[in-house]
Amino acid sequence: MSIDKAKALIAGIGKKKLDMYHKDFLLTWEKSLEELEATFDTAKAIKLLRDANVSTRLWDSGIAVSNFRDNSTRTRFSFASASDLLGLYVQDLDEGKSQIAHGETVRETATMISFLAEAIGIRDDMYLGEGDTYQREVGKSLDEAVAAGVLPDRPTVVNLQSDIDHPTQSMADLLHLAERFGGLDKLKGKKLAMTWAYSPSYGKPLSVPQGIIGLATRFGMDVTLAHPEGYDLIPEVVALSARQAKASGGSFKKTFSMDEAFKGADIVYPKSWAPYDVMQKRVPLLHDGNTAGLKDLEKACLANNAKFMDWECTEAKMKLTAAGTAPTGAQALYMHCLPADITGVSCKAGEVAATVFDRYRDDTYREAGWKPYIIAAMILLGKRKDPSATLSALLKRGTPRVI
Amino acid sequence: MSIDKAKALIAGIGKKKLDMYHKDFLLTWEKSLEELEATFDTAKAIKLLRDANVSTRLWDSGIAVSNFRDNSTRTRFSFASASDLLGLYVQDLDEGKSQIAHGETVRETATMISFLAEAIGIRDDMYLGEGDTYQREVGKSLDEAVAAGVLPDRPTVVNLQSDIDHPTQSMADLLHLAERFGGLDKLKGKKLAMTWAYSPSYGKPLSVPQGIIGLATRFGMDVTLAHPEGYDLIPEVVALSARQAKASGGSFKKTFSMDEAFKGADIVYPKSWAPYDVMQKRVPLLHDGNTAGLKDLEKACLANNAKFMDWECTEAKMKLTAAGTAPTGAQALYMHCLPADITGVSCKAGEVAATVFDRYRDDTYREAGWKPYIIAAMILLGKRKDPSATLSALLKRGTPRVI
Amino acid sequence: MSIDKAKALIAGIGKKKLDMYHKDFLLTWEKSLEELEATFDTAKAIKLLRDANVSTRLWDSGIAVSNFRDNSTRTRFSFASASDLLGLYVQDLDEGKSQIAHGETVRETATMISFLAEAIGIRDDMYLGEGDTYQREVGKSLDEAVAAGVLPDRPTVVNLQSDIDHPTQSMADLLHLAERFGGLDKLKGKKLAMTWAYSPSYGKPLSVPQGIIGLATRFGMDVTLAHPEGYDLIPEVVALSARQAKASGGSFKKTFSMDEAFKGADIVYPKSWAPYDVMQKRVPLLHDGNTAGLKDLEKACLANNAKFMDWECTEAKMKLTAAGTAPTGAQALYMHCLPADITGVSCKAGEVAATVFDRYRDDTYREAGWKPYIIAAMILLGKRKDPSATLSALLKRGTPRVI
Repeated sequence: MSIDKAKALIAGIGKKKLDMYHKDFLLTWEKSLEELEATFDTAKAIKLLRDANVSTRLWDSGIAVSNFRDNSTRTRFSFASASDLLGLYVQDLDEGKSQIAHGETVRETATMISFLAEAIGIRDDMYLGEGDTYQREVGKSLDEAVAAGVLPDRPTVVNLQSDIDHPTQSMADLLHLAERFGGLDKLKGKKLAMTWAYSPSYGKPLSVPQGIIGLATRFGMDVTLAHPEGYDLIPEVVALSARQAKASGGSFKKTFSMDEAFKGADIVYPKSWAPYDVMQKRVPLLHDGNTAGLKDLEKACLANNAKFMDWECTEAKMKLTAAGTAPTGAQALYMHCLPADITGVSCKAGEVAATVFDRYRDDTYREAGWKPYIIAAMILLGKRKDPSATLSALLKRGTPRVI
Repeated sequence: MSIDKAKALIAGIGKKKLDMYHKDFLLTWEKSLEELEATFDTAKAIKLLRDANVSTRLWDSGIAVSNFRDNSTRTRFSFASASDLLGLYVQDLDEGKSQIAHGETVRETATMISFLAEAIGIRDDMYLGEGDTYQREVGKSLDEAVAAGVLPDRPTVVNLQSDIDHPTQSMADLLHLAERFGGLDKLKGKKLAMTWAYSPSYGKPLSVPQGIIGLATRFGMDVTLAHPEGYDLIPEVVALSARQAKASGGSFKKTFSMDEAFKGADIVYPKSWAPYDVMQKRVPLLHDGNTAGLKDLEKACLANNAKFMDWECTEAKMKLTAAGTAPTGAQALYMHCLPADITGVSCKAGEVAATVFDRYRDDTYREAGWKPYIIAAMILLGKRKDPSATLSALLKRGTPRVI
Repeated sequence: MSIDKAKALIAGIGKKKLDMYHKDFLLTWEKSLEELEATFDTAKAIKLLRDANVSTRLWDSGIAVSNFRDNSTRTRFSFASASDLLGLYVQDLDEGKSQIAHGETVRETATMISFLAEAIGIRDDMYLGEGDTYQREVGKSLDEAVAAGVLPDRPTVVNLQSDIDHPTQSMADLLHLAERFGGLDKLKGKKLAMTWAYSPSYGKPLSVPQGIIGLATRFGMDVTLAHPEGYDLIPEVVALSARQAKASGGSFKKTFSMDEAFKGADIVYPKSWAPYDVMQKRVPLLHDGNTAGLKDLEKACLANNAKFMDWECTEAKMKLTAAGTAPTGAQALYMHCLPADITGVSCKAGEVAATVFDRYRDDTYREAGWKPYIIAAMILLGKRKDPSATLSALLKRGTPRVI
């Protein structure tokens, strides 16, 4: 049965008009709706094949490069799992203390690590204005090296979180939503509240909320972005989300009230982030290694955060949702990219009440469980000209994943 | 011939009553005798298949997670080798400086790393009273995640050394003994001296001597535990060893004299460890990062150690053994988990005289050589319902390990 | 067509007289000409098979150990790529802060990491007089462990850069030359200038220039070694290069003038290194952790370097070459092991002018691109008795590298 479902998905992928071959996956809004759907369907197909014990090892040998310019546990495991699922060996590019300089050196490093590489996953989310730029520089260097005949094939770059977007997260989130609500088409008209939440930490990247509003607005959802005054996201991403909502037949609005966002919501995504202008101030301090300056900025930022400790996803707030249409029944579906700051558990006061989190814990785990498959789909679609044929070939080969 | 031997072992494994599927391997004394035998036989069968150039790659893709909360070279290599032998890719969970907290977070981390994981190897031996507890918490979290449908399958947890037991070591040690003495049944009545030995270092875990007395007493051996007064092991493990010796038709005694333990011994295992109460005092100091307190404790402990510098496995001591029945002829078989503190080689005065160690060097290397196979067996038995059928399938498939 | 070429190479390899099985690859001058040619041809054959989408995964499971005693990005990736290409899983031996002591411990560590290992790659280039010695100690330990029956098979040791030679670099360099000039035989009589160049850093190993003169003189080339007075290489390697040049019908000369070396050169290799006697003085300072002493030495060395800032590969210098016979036409082929110190790009003043480097950038990338294949060839030749038969078997099996 899992095989039949896989076959149907694979056939569907073959009918889509895609321009993903030898392209990178950096921002969801650079992809067409069909391409996003193909990514979801490929992720699901890979999962179904694995469930049916069909090996999805496309490659008998090949390298996947991971380049984490910020700490990571779950994305690191997701990338490793995805790579292994396709038959790729992960080699980590550990830049150590010497940040690889921009300019000439990116070009050279990108080439040197790519002679036998199929995919390069990059996390670069600390420096606002730089992460996405760096990923594009890598991609451009690869194009040049392929054009010069220096590389035998173009590795595909997968954004594992930049300053702008976090597509492996947002795509896993949306696929989770589609599965919970009964299909991508069922998301139309559903109200999603992407709201800031209080946390006793600071400097959390903007890419998760940006990724969510930048993706959910593609599917006709009614998206509300809520945060205290001053906790802005990158203006261009907010503007783009509004345009996309309009185009997809959904809506997009901003509010400074968490309650307003929660009212009648089908889905709530309460999550802390640092204000846009704080992230901007932080970049030169990080570059200068200005520890004192960073300490001061953190102190000011935490003091400001403390004014908004009531931005917590409590039981009272959840009662405002009373969605009815959500798969969880009387209340909205709670989402989080994890780890959440849980009041009384991981901190004294945080983003979410322990009882709320507990009720949705398994949901958030399921949400995270899609990430390896989404990454595998992104790699496969960036590397195979006819992904439908490739998936069919895997099915036909029928190598068991485990004896 | 190696194939015929493998076939016989595989058939034997099929006849054993096992309850190891989807269970963890944490303490040998939680396993039945048949389960221990199955582990030995599976390890031997895997080695025989490899010797015959039959690939034992069960998995075409899959992740093995290693989590080393203490330094390790040989166990790290053993785990990697075992995983690779079965077709699993090792992804290391490097907790870095941020020790993953107990409680909520263990549950979440355990799930996050396990979406595509088949096995999780954990070393956590520094904190008396905590290592085994942590491993059980991971196991419980996995059970919950499987029950909730969050994980597709239950990864098996392998104890790569806890505060209580070091089963991959003790099982490799026992398999080495069985091979040297001509069979597990030949160990009955053999005298094994597990004795403390002097070392110019402190804080060595108790899990090796505990593992040895907790396992050797299962096979009817005459086990003597020797150490200076005050160098106790965990009392419960000592009591359990005495009970087990009785039940298996062997014996267990304690002595404060190394000479007495060596007298007539067939096997000697001289190895340093820290006293139980020192390890207990050390835990809060480690947690508090109390460097001064740790220094003081180390100083006191080393001063105390220095009173027992004559607890060295010298030629004179070896002459006390004069076993006759040991495979090495006139003297007992010397064992060590390595690296040993060798007098005049790795330290001025240590656990063993250089000439003694030299004579048994290859034996200790052979002893260590079983570890990858023991770990592979533990993983296989924890993950396959019918391990005998799985091994047969590998044999039937007959993929060469190397062309 | 790529398959036909591969077949021809494979047949040729079968006709060569080789004594590489169960041997290590430490210094090119320990290998016969036929062995060097076999290494080139095996590297090319593996690349051709990969180009034709034929999997070169010899091993279905097996470990390749990497031991980097100095930082590395490109060699690390090359070794990982080579290992993966053959089906080996790379396990890194990270000695951390505790440098593994010489003597007893090398023997033990070498054995402990090798129970299931097929290859061990070692970089140890910091300590003049020690790197090559260490690699030999590892090899000797492996021989002993195999002789004692402790190891099932002899892993092959590949020198990933020692204090004396850098064979994976020099072999990739020579293969690049052979490809660019139309064959190994076409190198006869070509003038190669291996010259020192200015760099604002110090302490760069001698193994690259030594590797180049020690290898190029095997093939009848006219090799000129140029450096400022005092920037000597290991005298024995220089003497050996002179002898080899004579034997191969080429020539070898030394000069203190960069211009003289460049005059009429077909190939130029301008690259910085530290003077031999500085490297000698550095060893005890490194061992003592004498930071102040190292700082002083660096200061003196940099001050001395600064006298030779005109040793830069400029456009004017390139005009001296005007080779005509070089594949690049009017000027010599520029080579570098990368990363180069490029004036105005990676430093204010360095080894090479930006315009020169830019013109040859793709050439240097192609040069580097051979490294994974050279390493794979070294492993294959050290591990398979009949490499030609092994390569034929891969071709016959015909497993696609990617579906």
